[in-house]
Amino acid sequence: MNIMSTSGKIPVAVLGATGAVGQRFIQLLQEHPFFEIAALTASDRSEGKRYADATRWVIEGDIPPAIQDMILLPTDAPAVMRHAPIVAAFSALPNEAAQAAEPAFAQAGALVFSNASFHRMHPDVPLVIPEVNADHLRLLRHQQRARGWSGGIICNTNCTVSGPAMTLRPLYDAFGVKRVFAVSLQAQSGAGYPGVPSLDITDNVLPFIKGEEDKLEAEARKLLGTLRDDGDGPAGVADAPIAVSAHCNRVPVIDGHIVTLSIELASPASPDDVTRVLRDYRRAEVSGLPTAPEQPIVVRSEPDRPQPRRDRMAGNGMSAVVGRVRAEPLFGDCGVKCVTLAHNTIRGAAGGSILNAEVLFKVSGLTER
Amino acid sequence: MNIMSTSGKIPVAVLGATGAVGQRFIQLLQEHPFFEIAALTASDRSEGKRYADATRWVIEGDIPPAIQDMILLPTDAPAVMRHAPIVAAFSALPNEAAQAAEPAFAQAGALVFSNASFHRMHPDVPLVIPEVNADHLRLLRHQQRARGWSGGIICNTNCTVSGPAMTLRPLYDAFGVKRVFAVSLQAQSGAGYPGVPSLDITDNVLPFIKGEEDKLEAEARKLLGTLRDDGDGPAGVADAPIAVSAHCNRVPVIDGHIVTLSIELASPASPDDVTRVLRDYRRAEVSGLPTAPEQPIVVRSEPDRPQPRRDRMAGNGMSAVVGRVRAEPLFGDCGVKCVTLAHNTIRGAAGGSILNAEVLFKVSGLTER
Amino acid sequence: MNIMSTSGKIPVAVLGATGAVGQRFIQLLQEHPFFEIAALTASDRSEGKRYADATRWVIEGDIPPAIQDMILLPTDAPAVMRHAPIVAAFSALPNEAAQAAEPAFAQAGALVFSNASFHRMHPDVPLVIPEVNADHLRLLRHQQRARGWSGGIICNTNCTVSGPAMTLRPLYDAFGVKRVFAVSLQAQSGAGYPGVPSLDITDNVLPFIKGEEDKLEAEARKLLGTLRDDGDGPAGVADAPIAVSAHCNRVPVIDGHIVTLSIELASPASPDDVTRVLRDYRRAEVSGLPTAPEQPIVVRSEPDRPQPRRDRMAGNGMSAVVGRVRAEPLFGDCGVKCVTLAHNTIRGAAGGSILNAEVLFKVSGLTER
Amino acid sequence: MNIMSTSGKIPVAVLGATGAVGQRFIQLLQEHPFFEIAALTASDRSEGKRYADATRWVIEGDIPPAIQDMILLPTDAPAVMRHAPIVAAFSALPNEAAQAAEPAFAQAGALVFSNASFHRMHPDVPLVIPEVNADHLRLLRHQQRARGWSGGIICNTNCTVSGPAMTLRPLYDAFGVKRVFAVSLQAQSGAGYPGVPSLDITDNVLPFIKGEEDKLEAEARKLLGTLRDDGDGPAGVADAPIAVSAHCNRVPVIDGHIVTLSIELASPASPDDVTRVLRDYRRAEVSGLPTAPEQPIVVRSEPDRPQPRRDRMAGNGMSAVVGRVRAEPLFGDCGVKCVTLAHNTIRGAAGGSILNAEVLFKVSGLTER
Repeated sequence: MNIMSTSGKIPVAVLGATGAVGQRFIQLLQEHPFFEIAALTASDRSEGKRYADATRWVIEGDIPPAIQDMILLPTDAPAVMRHAPIVAAFSALPNEAAQAAEPAFAQAGALVFSNASFHRMHPDVPLVIPEVNADHLRLLRHQQRARGWSGGIICNTNCTVSGPAMTLRPLYDAFGVKRVFAVSLQAQSGAGYPGVPSLDITDNVLPFIKGEEDKLEAEARKLLGTLRDDGDGPAGVADAPIAVSAHCNRVPVIDGHIVTLSIELASPASPDDVTRVLRDYRRAEVSGLPTAPEQPIVVRSEPDRPQPRRDRMAGNGMSAVVGRVRAEPLFGDCGVKCVTLAHNTIRGAAGGSILNAEVLFKVSGLTER
Repeated sequence: MNIMSTSGKIPVAVLGATGAVGQRFIQLLQEHPFFEIAALTASDRSEGKRYADATRWVIEGDIPPAIQDMILLPTDAPAVMRHAPIVAAFSALPNEAAQAAEPAFAQAGALVFSNASFHRMHPDVPLVIPEVNADHLRLLRHQQRARGWSGGIICNTNCTVSGPAMTLRPLYDAFGVKRVFAVSLQAQSGAGYPGVPSLDITDNVLPFIKGEEDKLEAEARKLLGTLRDDGDGPAGVADAPIAVSAHCNRVPVIDGHIVTLSIELASPASPDDVTRVLRDYRRAEVSGLPTAPEQPIVVRSEPDRPQPRRDRMAGNGMSAVVGRVRAEPLFGDCGVKCVTLAHNTIRGAAGGSILNAEVLFKVSGLTER
Repeated sequence: MNIMSTSGKIPVAVLGATGAVGQRFIQLLQEHPFFEIAALTASDRSEGKRYADATRWVIEGDIPPAIQDMILLPTDAPAVMRHAPIVAAFSALPNEAAQAAEPAFAQAGALVFSNASFHRMHPDVPLVIPEVNADHLRLLRHQQRARGWSGGIICNTNCTVSGPAMTLRPLYDAFGVKRVFAVSLQAQSGAGYPGVPSLDITDNVLPFIKGEEDKLEAEARKLLGTLRDDGDGPAGVADAPIAVSAHCNRVPVIDGHIVTLSIELASPASPDDVTRVLRDYRRAEVSGLPTAPEQPIVVRSEPDRPQPRRDRMAGNGMSAVVGRVRAEPLFGDCGVKCVTLAHNTIRGAAGGSILNAEVLFKVSGLTER
Repeated sequence: MNIMSTSGKIPVAVLGATGAVGQRFIQLLQEHPFFEIAALTASDRSEGKRYADATRWVIEGDIPPAIQDMILLPTDAPAVMRHAPIVAAFSALPNEAAQAAEPAFAQAGALVFSNASFHRMHPDVPLVIPEVNADHLRLLRHQQRARGWSGGIICNTNCTVSGPAMTLRPLYDAFGVKRVFAVSLQAQSGAGYPGVPSLDITDNVLPFIKGEEDKLEAEARKLLGTLRDDGDGPAGVADAPIAVSAHCNRVPVIDGHIVTLSIELASPASPDDVTRVLRDYRRAEVSGLPTAPEQPIVVRSEPDRPQPRRDRMAGNGMSAVVGRVRAEPLFGDCGVKCVTLAHNTIRGAAGGSILNAEVLFKVSGLTER
């Protein structure tokens, strides 16, 4: 079967294309060397409209010209497949819509790269940041077998956990990690559009984000967990034995989630050790991929970095930026403190899903011809 | 000696009266039942000018009419004393200026209620939040004896520690406290005026404030510490055996410092226990004082409070506001998490010093006539 | 008929009490010497709930204790009248709801002080800022006669026009006004709650507010217009012969609308002349009323005032603050430029309606006993 | 004389390289096809330091690697020339420093492209926006002759006038312009770094910027004026006979100055006429130049654009963006209203100077080899 379009690229859909994350998918897929947007879907209300007519474009720049005139399809797998034989779907659906629609696309043969939280914690769904746990993508064939799908669902993470998880991965490998206190200062765009009312956040902090602390804690353990697919029992991920405690705050920032971390390692390490391990971290799985940053983790040595506005675009928004690596005295010589930043709508949302797709298609050989 | 002015009030000076904290002192001392401003000092540059001519008023409201025409004196103790026989001085001096000037005023007989950090950690200087450690004011007579002063220096705390210290005091008394992870989200006004450039903080977070983490950690231990003045050795304060670890961040907020706390108590307590202890906390030392709030600690039950803009004026800016009291799983059944807020330029600066003065003068009987 | 409650105050309702303007009405009516809240209404969705349960309180402070437990009524005139024999209703209804509900309350005998725009431009509806055109209140009896109502509708203005109208009134009387170029910088709260999404306004300006420019232009002419009720033809207001042109912008400010004005007077006047006329302006109609500020217009002489955050609470949020009075060279010796500020949710909304009510009840003698 | 460096590029200096505008020059000159940075100067305090050590980088991104290790020279023409035979100097000097230093560099043979205001209004100094008045560059040879310089001074404009001037140019040519009411909403970066204190601008507007209104009014007339260099009397520019009146405001925005315009044309034109003229405007003088945007003026048709955050990067920050073109009723059928936006530190500062240099060197043939 030749799944490529005449351009030689893989035809993809963006599900929920009119919202803020859908817009980011469209922006990041422009001129993508592997993928080509063949279909855009929206809620029933917008179906049949020109994309430009149905969309209030809220991110920087403009709607790409090639997208403006595309007609929005319903978020209905058979209808989309009739329109264009898409191979992958990037899902920016809200959680309720994702529940039924994403499995329908998977059953219809599409690989669904989802930004929704609904399926993330299911045992046979890979929850993946490629630089953290690309091996979990092997869950996909178990998922396909168990559900009888030719497609499948691959989830990216909650936007807040992406920075901490990328920071913890090399430390977990090098020193072990036992406990983590995480406090987030999260950007407004994490709540989507219209999202946070300006009267709630101007000259203010909201010290609570519904569901966020639980997600950060649970997803960190699954991301750093161990793939079990050796045939003894059903495939899945054994959570990493790390205790994570989170406080999540919303602050008046457009993009870029800061998380402060106080980490108890399993073995002693100095701030210099930690810095070196973070700086040297590379993963072969993403080497050379178009959306992968040169350095997954950028460590800054200035005392007052990372800052959201000045650092969120590091690695085109795909690097985690770490700073203020120093001792955490409350954990003795196993303690380290630092600050981590990741762009929540690029690394933590659309960009993360696209990188997941790049890894999977590279492994599959589909992008190699 | 009759130290009262003809109005029957205690004549006081504000040192460093033109800056942001000096302005707050002036604002809070208007119509004060105990105190009356008899002298205002400024740096040499402004000496001899009308207050209204030398001052860029940056807080809300206007310069009080009675103050506008006062002539600024140099920050020189003999000169001020010649001008008016002040009994107390509220010091909003920058740290370098406070180093020499505050002892000079103390030597000249004034009780200096200082907002500067220079003298805070000296063994014979009381560092006081009345609802936390009013008994430490007894250090004053040791200080007077040791230094041969008729006046003395009484310090208030760093603005960031005031909320956490007020929150920890009743917990320390009821359950004991072993470890505290504190992460601050601090307002712009904490840096004074002009302070933080807008280009640094708009759409941004600064994850570092020079010297702040050390102060928060050290001052918390002294505030909760035990007064030693029983004659065996020199008087002083034995630090509380609490380990505190802080991350300090600046956020785009005008006034009001948020601090998230993850606390390891010395004995088990449920969130309900903790809430009850916080709600019920009262201190007789401040009962009925004009600047003391009815409730030192206001506990809110909504999931998303306290918020700086909506809660900073609780108790006229003098209450600590606590919310989101919940279990801290990383410390087992001894763990509790919460969020605390205090107004940094009222409770954490000028208001705190004025309350210190009210307590001291009430005890001395000077205000009782 | 004794319309007073047992407290001796006039019983009133707040219609649409759960929204941002409704909250402001409740806040400003606490401890009001004339009025007492006897009923609160909301949309069907909230009917029957406790006020505190149905309301997300978004303005500063807390829900007054006496209000928290009040049960929300439907916005239905007979139902409200059965519940309590209210004499006046302060309407914070959205425009669509106001269309039918406000006349129903008027027919049922209540004086409706409306904050909605729907009825503002009807010929027999007084559109009033008491310091500008209290005489227009005489339209009320024509309205009552024409419509057969015992109650009536009295409108306050669009929030943006209140500052310019108060500034123009004394100039119109003293010098005449021919043309006005007005450019607004409007606060977020003008759009209500949730209102402006934070992603639209952080680090941004929105150079358009739907319908606002038309309202500013039309209402200014009606406010400054001449009452015609001498019996020749139907009663109404002849618009003032002033040409007004507006640009309206939304800026990242919580409360307080700035409007820059370039004014062509009908006769020459210097900036000093203009300043004197503005400073001296007083209106007997509001003298001594509880919500009337001592000075309707506060003129500031600093070069950089008025500023929203520092000046919006002048006169408890009821004064217009004017600054930068200077020549407008494009209009020769008849030109004057200035900047005006008014608090949009106090003077421009709830406070304005309450002052309208105070004037009307004072004139009626109901408040004089 | 071969003035090129070995790279074949023109060696240039950045004067005042450590400040915010200096940083922007460095950023925009990276990889520039014509120019190569050969020298960086700073104040005495920083002389001799590595650039990275002396500079607090405040704009987005990082210091380019090739610049980090450059050693700062004093802002002294002979010293700079000894160090490197620069042909042009981009001046980000503060006004006082520019007064003496820029002529010294011009005398030493450098073409100084200045961002300072000091020399702008001198009769023999070209004040240029290439798309507005590239012909004024011919003043340069008169300047050189009159002052005996081999170099010269070419000024760019005040950052606020750039958007209005670009908008007015084609309208002036097509219809004539008589009067303009301009009200600005200016970004924080216009004040440099540290510039506006955050306590002054958070939740606030500053309705005054020192000197700004005069500059906007005077520079607009010179920019649109007529070059007089035909030998009758000294060369210079005859101001355009346009009356301009400005109100300037600072708003909480990082970059991008909004200016609302109410324009009286000299002959009737509809909004459609005006839109067409603006959209079609092109200038041959900048055609193909690296920093020139494809469209000098981008006209947006959405009702709520331009917005600073969403539109400031149009044409890489070099386009003026115009929106809301509509009738201005106060000027009858000769009236038009609109909103214009330009990026104040790119088009209005560093980018403007670089484009001036590109035009001059292109004309001179130096860049043509």
